Amino acid sequence: MQIARVRGTVVSTQKDPSLRGVKLLLLQFVNEEGQLLEKYEVAADSVGAGFDEWVLVSRGSAARQVQGNEQRPLDASVVAIIDTVHVEDRLLYSKKDQYR
Amino acid sequence: MQIARVRGTVVSTQKDPSLRGVKLLLLQFVNEEGQLLEKYEVAADSVGAGFDEWVLVSRGSAARQVQGNEQRPLDASVVAIIDTVHVEDRLLYSKKDQYR
Amino acid sequence: MQIARVRGTVVSTQKDPSLRGVKLLLLQFVNEEGQLLEKYEVAADSVGAGFDEWVLVSRGSAARQVQGNEQRPLDASVVAIIDTVHVEDRLLYSKKDQYR
Amino acid sequence: MQIARVRGTVVSTQKDPSLRGVKLLLLQFVNEEGQLLEKYEVAADSVGAGFDEWVLVSRGSAARQVQGNEQRPLDASVVAIIDTVHVEDRLLYSKKDQYR
Amino acid sequence: MQIARVRGTVVSTQKDPSLRGVKLLLLQFVNEEGQLLEKYEVAADSVGAGFDEWVLVSRGSAARQVQGNEQRPLDASVVAIIDTVHVEDRLLYSKKDQYR
Repeated sequence: MQIARVRGTVVSTQKDPSLRGVKLLLLQFVNEEGQLLEKYEVAADSVGAGFDEWVLVSRGSAARQVQGNEQRPLDASVVAIIDTVHVEDRLLYSKKDQYR
Repeated sequence: MQIARVRGTVVSTQKDPSLRGVKLLLLQFVNEEGQLLEKYEVAADSVGAGFDEWVLVSRGSAARQVQGNEQRPLDASVVAIIDTVHVEDRLLYSKKDQYR
Repeated sequence: MQIARVRGTVVSTQKDPSLRGVKLLLLQFVNEEGQLLEKYEVAADSVGAGFDEWVLVSRGSAARQVQGNEQRPLDASVVAIIDTVHVEDRLLYSKKDQYR
Repeated sequence: MQIARVRGTVVSTQKDPSLRGVKLLLLQFVNEEGQLLEKYEVAADSVGAGFDEWVLVSRGSAARQVQGNEQRPLDASVVAIIDTVHVEDRLLYSKKDQYR
Repeated sequence: MQIARVRGTVVSTQKDPSLRGVKLLLLQFVNEEGQLLEKYEVAADSVGAGFDEWVLVSRGSAARQVQGNEQRPLDASVVAIIDTVHVEDRLLYSKKDQYR
């Protein structure tokens, strides 16, 4: 999985019928130092991720292992909202610190 | 999914028999600022995307989750025509503004 | 799918038994201006693509949706010989012009 | 598979229910000279990899071939802890030397 | 598929049980001029590829279409030992010339 930050939303009315009701988030990837990269992904969200939160995104057929997504033409899903990322002894990210 | 703009069409008569009747669009990817990237994809379209519209493209096995594509050798499909893209508080793209 | 030009062939006798009789083409990818890129792919061909022709190549599990390839360890197949590529109003490639 | 070093951990409480109890490691890829690359992956671990160890990571649907992961939305799993990597006659990495 | 040269081996004892007995080769990719690239892959070998030979490597779910690999968490397999690579009229590589 890749680490990404929720940056925005994508809305569409004319789409594959199976995508009705799916919330689509615009995610921007984060490097191992916590900085935003140019790379982004539009992913389905079913864990309730909020703006600016760090999340884990699964791509490829993994995106359809989320309940309800099995038959949807999705190649990316948010599968977790991140609490903490530790690199060596260092706390790279903590959701608690971010939002207090 | 990635955000792309419809840039053209690809036509082929000598092809895998299962691809007969499939409309193939030439898509060019768009970065998080809305600028065209060099990266492109030829994708099957079943949502009726028109020239210059912004769309979502699903790649890999997701492309075959679109009804009718299940048995086709497709690795990319247009799955949605985008109405709006919001990044933070900013409206990055609106189909309405684009075409008024 | 990606647009590629047929550049050569790869021959192998010692291989996975399921690959016997499969024609393997060396394809070089083409950018949105029609120029050859460094990126290449060795792909199975079942549509009869000839040297220098422009083709569509499907990668990943899509390569095994071609009849006869279902059980073969292939991750790339030529699925179409391109007649024309249009970008906006411009004819980027025409097989007819290429070979007249 | 790619060679990566275990660099840290990712913790999440709000996530896809199927991911409960899955240990998520932050891996950083290694080039053919043994140097850390910028590229990373967050992968499920079921082989008990420890901090700084070199591991093999499988991505895509392969990540779900690990027992217990079949239905989880995972696109990367640690599948082996590396003992040795030999390039030509040279020992590039040995777990034994690393930890004595 | 990609063209790669066999550069070394990877050995592991602590691994997913299904990987017991699988020979893992370190492959380095080759560009269209025959030069080694930085990109590498660790792949399962069942065709008996030897050191320095040129091989075809299949990635993704294709790697599990090799007999015996169906249930293994592999995302790359050597599927063929290359005899010759022709680009246009030119012989880019011949196994015979390499080893005489």
